[in-house]
Amino acid sequence: MQRKSAISRVRPRGFVAACLFGLALLPVDPAAAIDFEFPTLFKRNADGLDPVEQAPCGPGGLAITPSGDYIISCHQFFNPTYSVVRLNRDGIWEAFPNISMNTPAPGNQLALDSVLGIVCDEDGVVWMLDNGRRSQTAPKLVGWDTTKGKTGGTHKIINFVAPAVLKTSFLRNLVLDPEEPFIYISDPALGQDAAVIVVDLNTGLTRRILQGHYSVQPDENIALELDGKPVEAKTQDGRTVQPLAGVSPLAIDREGKWLYFGPMYGRYLYRIQTEFLRDPTLDNTQIGSKVQAFSGKPICDSIAIDPRGNVYFGDIGGNAIGYVTPDDKYLQYHYLIQDGRLIWPGGLTFGNDGKLHFFSNQLHRTPIYNGGKDVSAPPFEIFRIKPLPKKGLWPTR
Amino acid sequence: MQRKSAISRVRPRGFVAACLFGLALLPVDPAAAIDFEFPTLFKRNADGLDPVEQAPCGPGGLAITPSGDYIISCHQFFNPTYSVVRLNRDGIWEAFPNISMNTPAPGNQLALDSVLGIVCDEDGVVWMLDNGRRSQTAPKLVGWDTTKGKTGGTHKIINFVAPAVLKTSFLRNLVLDPEEPFIYISDPALGQDAAVIVVDLNTGLTRRILQGHYSVQPDENIALELDGKPVEAKTQDGRTVQPLAGVSPLAIDREGKWLYFGPMYGRYLYRIQTEFLRDPTLDNTQIGSKVQAFSGKPICDSIAIDPRGNVYFGDIGGNAIGYVTPDDKYLQYHYLIQDGRLIWPGGLTFGNDGKLHFFSNQLHRTPIYNGGKDVSAPPFEIFRIKPLPKKGLWPTR
Repeated sequence: MQRKSAISRVRPRGFVAACLFGLALLPVDPAAAIDFEFPTLFKRNADGLDPVEQAPCGPGGLAITPSGDYIISCHQFFNPTYSVVRLNRDGIWEAFPNISMNTPAPGNQLALDSVLGIVCDEDGVVWMLDNGRRSQTAPKLVGWDTTKGKTGGTHKIINFVAPAVLKTSFLRNLVLDPEEPFIYISDPALGQDAAVIVVDLNTGLTRRILQGHYSVQPDENIALELDGKPVEAKTQDGRTVQPLAGVSPLAIDREGKWLYFGPMYGRYLYRIQTEFLRDPTLDNTQIGSKVQAFSGKPICDSIAIDPRGNVYFGDIGGNAIGYVTPDDKYLQYHYLIQDGRLIWPGGLTFGNDGKLHFFSNQLHRTPIYNGGKDVSAPPFEIFRIKPLPKKGLWPTR
Repeated sequence: MQRKSAISRVRPRGFVAACLFGLALLPVDPAAAIDFEFPTLFKRNADGLDPVEQAPCGPGGLAITPSGDYIISCHQFFNPTYSVVRLNRDGIWEAFPNISMNTPAPGNQLALDSVLGIVCDEDGVVWMLDNGRRSQTAPKLVGWDTTKGKTGGTHKIINFVAPAVLKTSFLRNLVLDPEEPFIYISDPALGQDAAVIVVDLNTGLTRRILQGHYSVQPDENIALELDGKPVEAKTQDGRTVQPLAGVSPLAIDREGKWLYFGPMYGRYLYRIQTEFLRDPTLDNTQIGSKVQAFSGKPICDSIAIDPRGNVYFGDIGGNAIGYVTPDDKYLQYHYLIQDGRLIWPGGLTFGNDGKLHFFSNQLHRTPIYNGGKDVSAPPFEIFRIKPLPKKGLWPTR
């Protein structure tokens, strides 16, 4: 049976973009787009796609505990009841870490409002990044120690205030430095004011960097189409605008040497050595001078890196998981898997099983991206796939 | 030579207040009040008053490092150039910890705006409480490690956001728990919304408690007169109001068992066992039920406690340092020293010399308390006095 699903494409904007994203290979069928029929042509390596679970909400982020449990942040665009949920051992999704922290209440300093970025460290502390934009509460980072159960697990709370955040801030993703007590955060904000935020967990110092740098700002010449139409957002005053998100996807290598990042709406992935992020004596210009262009990238809000330095992309426009590998000295962009079930793929995370886990969240079908109407169609599937084999698909250098 | 100085009194409001504050003994001479002549009658034990230094600014708080250095917060009502200054070994007051942190600059997360409460711990970390009300920046607590010099000493920064603080918050004083990694803060706010804030230094969790409780709210039937006239404040819209500050003075005993506190404009000093402050499972009502009335108190914004549990008050209306001692089973209020040079005494702190250090800050002569005109008259003297002897002035129980 042919499955009803999304069709999508990235509007090619000239040869360079097409080459970078491998878009020249992407079959586009406008007719198919109109009736949401999914052309089998789109499938690549799809046999390896393993649907594992279904999220009870439109997911915004995915974390996996050391014992292998899924914890999901519920994307605020779906206006969820709970901000964060965990799949318990009975196979039931329940509020994480408890109902109290998922219940708005005046006086509750720990109440979660709008969590997107979520990561679990090797000690079982789940770090939740709450941008606070549903209720206009102050953004915060909350670390919860899962080894302590549903109460008493408050490990760390860091509130963000100006100048680390702006009124336009929309804290999106975070990565933990594996060697130093630091966390790096992406803030796409309104685009031109996007930035990276560096958090020193020992001192609590938070620092906004790279604001104004090209590596965090969106490219206005990129547009996204999904389900056969442009993805557009309604502003609060009713205007239709093209969402042009700045820096969003983040990844850090296993040694904590390099932070990989780039604007969601951007053609290039960048990287910077994390030592420069942690050095408080460097000013914004000096930090900017340390940024390196790394490879091309698709429109995406989630990336991951494996132990060999292969970078994986949740390719929203391509219904795909793409990758670049250092085994390819030109770092060209390729598809690892492409399948119509990958409808706005995100939450890319490696599990202890060595596999790459992620979800489809259908974000373009939420009211904010769909003229006020919610046409998202559960289930929101969580998949896992095998990453690149040790001997890469590409000749080693 | 008779010194020109302040005359002041607390308006007696019936017998109870007079007894509580020992006001029945306070000579009031309205004629003297008018021309600022200081009647010699006011002096008690004044021979023991040792003027040590002169602050370069109207001080808001006083800390003493383990090596005996003075660090002063400059009260925002004087609109000082630097927020915090330190008396260096050459006898020169300089910006503390450095000029950068005392220079407002966009992007400088550590810039100090309006520091009042300041305390140094035994490890040489100076904790500065910045209420941010000069520039309407977010309130913050900054710990600076003085053993690391003028740079690189950032020990901890904790930003306060709702619901721990309100828009009306005016963070005033802080005490460090000597046994647990906690700090307790007074927030007089606008009076009725005054509260205590509990800071967990390990987790960064901040919690607003006791808001709405009588022990933190001002008594509207108390008025302050200094220099022969009522102390009144101008609001931003030009109205003259009586400043009625809620909880402000704080002290904690050497074992960290009891927190002593009370409203600046209040007749009673209260205390609560700190274990109840640290217990996140207690709600506001439960915490309120643990508060005990301890003794009478004068109008004051600074108190200190010595190792024997004697509590000392910067008695603003009395131009005095007062005390209550557990050696007196009725805990009656007495003067330790009274002298016309004590003009709004504050910053009560014990030094390593075992003496009680404090300053006169003439706060009622600042524009905000004096119809827009600054009539403060430097120097702002720093004094030290001997506290009560080991065998108290009062019979032991």
